[in-house]
Amino acid sequence: MTIVAPRTPNTALKLPTDEGVLLVQGEDRPGLVRATSSALAENGVNIVSLDQYTDDPEGGNFFQRTVFHVDDYAAVRPVLEQSLQDALGKGLGLTWTLSDRSAPKRVAILASTSDHCLLDLLWRQRRGEIPMTVPMVVSNHTAVADDVRSFGIPFVHVPSQGADKSDAEARILDLLVGNVDLVVLARYMQILSEDFLQKVGVPVINIHHSFLPAFIGAGPYRKAKERGVKLIGATAHYVTGDLDEGPIIEQDVVRVTHADTAADLQRRGADVERAVLARAVTWHCQDRVMRNGRETVVF
Amino acid sequence: MTIVAPRTPNTALKLPTDEGVLLVQGEDRPGLVRATSSALAENGVNIVSLDQYTDDPEGGNFFQRTVFHVDDYAAVRPVLEQSLQDALGKGLGLTWTLSDRSAPKRVAILASTSDHCLLDLLWRQRRGEIPMTVPMVVSNHTAVADDVRSFGIPFVHVPSQGADKSDAEARILDLLVGNVDLVVLARYMQILSEDFLQKVGVPVINIHHSFLPAFIGAGPYRKAKERGVKLIGATAHYVTGDLDEGPIIEQDVVRVTHADTAADLQRRGADVERAVLARAVTWHCQDRVMRNGRETVVF
Amino acid sequence: MTIVAPRTPNTALKLPTDEGVLLVQGEDRPGLVRATSSALAENGVNIVSLDQYTDDPEGGNFFQRTVFHVDDYAAVRPVLEQSLQDALGKGLGLTWTLSDRSAPKRVAILASTSDHCLLDLLWRQRRGEIPMTVPMVVSNHTAVADDVRSFGIPFVHVPSQGADKSDAEARILDLLVGNVDLVVLARYMQILSEDFLQKVGVPVINIHHSFLPAFIGAGPYRKAKERGVKLIGATAHYVTGDLDEGPIIEQDVVRVTHADTAADLQRRGADVERAVLARAVTWHCQDRVMRNGRETVVF
Amino acid sequence: MTIVAPRTPNTALKLPTDEGVLLVQGEDRPGLVRATSSALAENGVNIVSLDQYTDDPEGGNFFQRTVFHVDDYAAVRPVLEQSLQDALGKGLGLTWTLSDRSAPKRVAILASTSDHCLLDLLWRQRRGEIPMTVPMVVSNHTAVADDVRSFGIPFVHVPSQGADKSDAEARILDLLVGNVDLVVLARYMQILSEDFLQKVGVPVINIHHSFLPAFIGAGPYRKAKERGVKLIGATAHYVTGDLDEGPIIEQDVVRVTHADTAADLQRRGADVERAVLARAVTWHCQDRVMRNGRETVVF
Repeated sequence: MTIVAPRTPNTALKLPTDEGVLLVQGEDRPGLVRATSSALAENGVNIVSLDQYTDDPEGGNFFQRTVFHVDDYAAVRPVLEQSLQDALGKGLGLTWTLSDRSAPKRVAILASTSDHCLLDLLWRQRRGEIPMTVPMVVSNHTAVADDVRSFGIPFVHVPSQGADKSDAEARILDLLVGNVDLVVLARYMQILSEDFLQKVGVPVINIHHSFLPAFIGAGPYRKAKERGVKLIGATAHYVTGDLDEGPIIEQDVVRVTHADTAADLQRRGADVERAVLARAVTWHCQDRVMRNGRETVVF
Repeated sequence: MTIVAPRTPNTALKLPTDEGVLLVQGEDRPGLVRATSSALAENGVNIVSLDQYTDDPEGGNFFQRTVFHVDDYAAVRPVLEQSLQDALGKGLGLTWTLSDRSAPKRVAILASTSDHCLLDLLWRQRRGEIPMTVPMVVSNHTAVADDVRSFGIPFVHVPSQGADKSDAEARILDLLVGNVDLVVLARYMQILSEDFLQKVGVPVINIHHSFLPAFIGAGPYRKAKERGVKLIGATAHYVTGDLDEGPIIEQDVVRVTHADTAADLQRRGADVERAVLARAVTWHCQDRVMRNGRETVVF
Repeated sequence: MTIVAPRTPNTALKLPTDEGVLLVQGEDRPGLVRATSSALAENGVNIVSLDQYTDDPEGGNFFQRTVFHVDDYAAVRPVLEQSLQDALGKGLGLTWTLSDRSAPKRVAILASTSDHCLLDLLWRQRRGEIPMTVPMVVSNHTAVADDVRSFGIPFVHVPSQGADKSDAEARILDLLVGNVDLVVLARYMQILSEDFLQKVGVPVINIHHSFLPAFIGAGPYRKAKERGVKLIGATAHYVTGDLDEGPIIEQDVVRVTHADTAADLQRRGADVERAVLARAVTWHCQDRVMRNGRETVVF
Repeated sequence: MTIVAPRTPNTALKLPTDEGVLLVQGEDRPGLVRATSSALAENGVNIVSLDQYTDDPEGGNFFQRTVFHVDDYAAVRPVLEQSLQDALGKGLGLTWTLSDRSAPKRVAILASTSDHCLLDLLWRQRRGEIPMTVPMVVSNHTAVADDVRSFGIPFVHVPSQGADKSDAEARILDLLVGNVDLVVLARYMQILSEDFLQKVGVPVINIHHSFLPAFIGAGPYRKAKERGVKLIGATAHYVTGDLDEGPIIEQDVVRVTHADTAADLQRRGADVERAVLARAVTWHCQDRVMRNGRETVVF
């Protein structure tokens, strides 16, 4: 059942070479920016851009994203990692991750029958807009199989099987674990178990078709029509065990009127859903998003 | 305690003369537009603009707003009313209202300590942007008294008196009943009783400082910060006995980030609140808003 | 060289039956709404929605869009046309057109190498969002051929041939004339001659990649970057002999920052371009757009 | 003629104490962030937030904004300035400025007869939303005198005197030079000479009532109506000798329709103008805006 996920060809994707992103997170204290920039400078690294945020000047949490350039990054990286571990990890108790901008994220997309979010991601991937490859699309339906394969991307059908999801989830885990860096639910209409979320071991991003926390749960467009709202929206968030309660990455809305039917809301909402999901996935793949409890920091 | 509400001077307000607005509402059936336009044409009335909407082509509700011009409207009006009553009321069982665009709506504003919504309405009134006069501002505090009076508008202080609101509400009713066509709650921090709403006899518009139905009740900006939303909003709605559940007239949002504190959200939200309330009051005073159960039709 | 344009299968498109749209345009005078609604009512027609606009209450131009339902529209239509001609054409000198909502518009799309506007239109057509069929896509390049054909839509390659465009234009005219109701330029990078526009005989809609009239001509994203604007936009307009000067149907913008490169602007602008073009084409195909000199009236 | 500009009372303005902003600008090279953060850390300064931008990774310009906290800033400041001068000025040839967040900017507002931008700034100043005081408002008309004085702010009338502006400009310079840190043109309808701009010695921010570069010059709303645009906008920019060509700080737009008259555009545009100007002035007073040739970097 295990397939080897091929890297999809992605000739449009022009990724910077010899550039990396350093994310640092932890308890705020004086000297963190200096410690970080010193560890970089000592290794000949030049900072391209740096964003920093502290959620409370007194005893809050510290977040920092640094994009840097260094000649022959591949060779420098092990030394740099040691410097960072000495300066940030051991010395200051900070959490940090280092990434290589020339390596796109490997993203699996889970979908059901709706194609708008899925196709938008695949188009953007093909155009080179998002630093990602898509090793596979998994669906509990076959409706989108031909479209996915026309992009040269493997499509795997894993049917839902009623109340007991453990078998289907196990098959999906076989496909994903070790093969991908991110899972995107592109209007995937199955609720993933906490067990799945733990075992998959990578972040999972979902698109919810309402402006959360309004209209939590099923049927948000119908509920929006009944309430007579003048704007409808969509929310991209990390999936946690609490349904529709995970940290929000991005939201947007579109104006509607009394003359829009529930079907119109759904159609207009589809445009917002795909735009919001595309932005959230792009930012995640650019290492711009850091979690802070129930919130996100988006640099 | 009763005061005679003076018409505030409003020299900037240039209202069209010999123009009226006809609102018609009722069960949809064939021939309604013809019946209306015939009744108008027979009286020498020229239609300036006409909007029409049916919420269900099969057996739904019909809504129509017609702006018209007729020479010497004051003289024609009684005859026109008779024609409309014959054609629409008796003949078709429709509800209709006729207004005169040269007569601004008389609007009382209730406020507490926040001034942003109040001052924005008074400034727009002075500029002639909203077809209204403001005979009085009533507040349970005195913080805004000087500002209100600097616009030449009477300010009346009616203190809240703890749990039993009946006395304060009775005093406010004395001021309002018969003197105004609309009541606007411009961040008025008291909940009006159903008894008050019934006795006041005119529509009441409130501004809620969230994108309803998200963050119903008190402290919406604090709740929004805790939930980590990426947009905050405001909602103008007609007040009913169900708190925060009345028909929505207008909503809007503004983008926020992780770096915005709850105080920042409140400050940025204030801009949305005043804009949304100003639009809702303007549209109401232009006879553009019709109620349809829990929803509104805004032409 | 002439091909017979097949109607593309479009099973998702659910079009209303027995419904039509009447557009009326001409010199304003009293009684026009009555004349129209009478002509409709006499033929058993029920008005579903009606929008009306006069650009100047005194001696201006009158515009009206009426959506209506009538049993067995196909049978009634000839009689209705006669009534309208008598009442509106002969009687009042108005211009009017009648359409059938069950018949989608036939739309040819012209493209070059960019695929974002083209694919978005084809995808919306397949989803049934726009009441149109796409009998053919014509391009001066072959880059988009496979994508177009994967939608089951004919792709025709008509290469540009240097300075003298008359031959290429003649070939395109052979394909279009008589076969389509609308031509859409989806980032088609050739300027059409006045001769072509005259001979094609149907409206032509273009998407310009700037917020017109800012950055007219070539290279708008580069110019926008140089000027340091904080918003970039796109404009959909009818094509006339004056380049970038035709009546604007729709515009929109997106926020950018100093950190966006010219390539970023192009990428972000692409999202606005496809959204703006899709709205303009949808509205045109719904008979919502009427021309008023250099402006449009969009109901 | 010289008046001593009083600090207006501004009890709502809660400014942070012992916090400063350091802006650094210059030719990019490796080690700049480290040099800055070291100079700060050596003086016991804790970085609250840091934004950094380089307009070209290879040989571009470097921009950095650092908000910091240090105990007893007033006492530390001279030592800190020396450290920065040694590290950044002498060592690296960078330009830097240091400000104290407890000291609001002193802002003079120039106005003519329109009050919307002016009053919005004065309200926000009174509410404590903008870290500024307004020592005076200067106008070539007297229309806004009473409103200004009702805020407890001095109003000075300097009439325009025909073609030769030198005398009026000289009088305004007498009022401003040495007394203010910023000049805001809040719909001031006089063009300032290059000589004035040079002598005033502080930045000047203007609000233009169009989405520049569309509709440069006079009458933008009339031109927008004639062109039939679907969005109108406003632009806040630094004033330079080239009219309407200065570096843009902020822009925004609002949707309009065919039904809006030129007067409607002006009214709706006024809301955008005041919002855009308020944001630009706020950001400037928060030391968030840096000039980069014809562009701005807004952190």
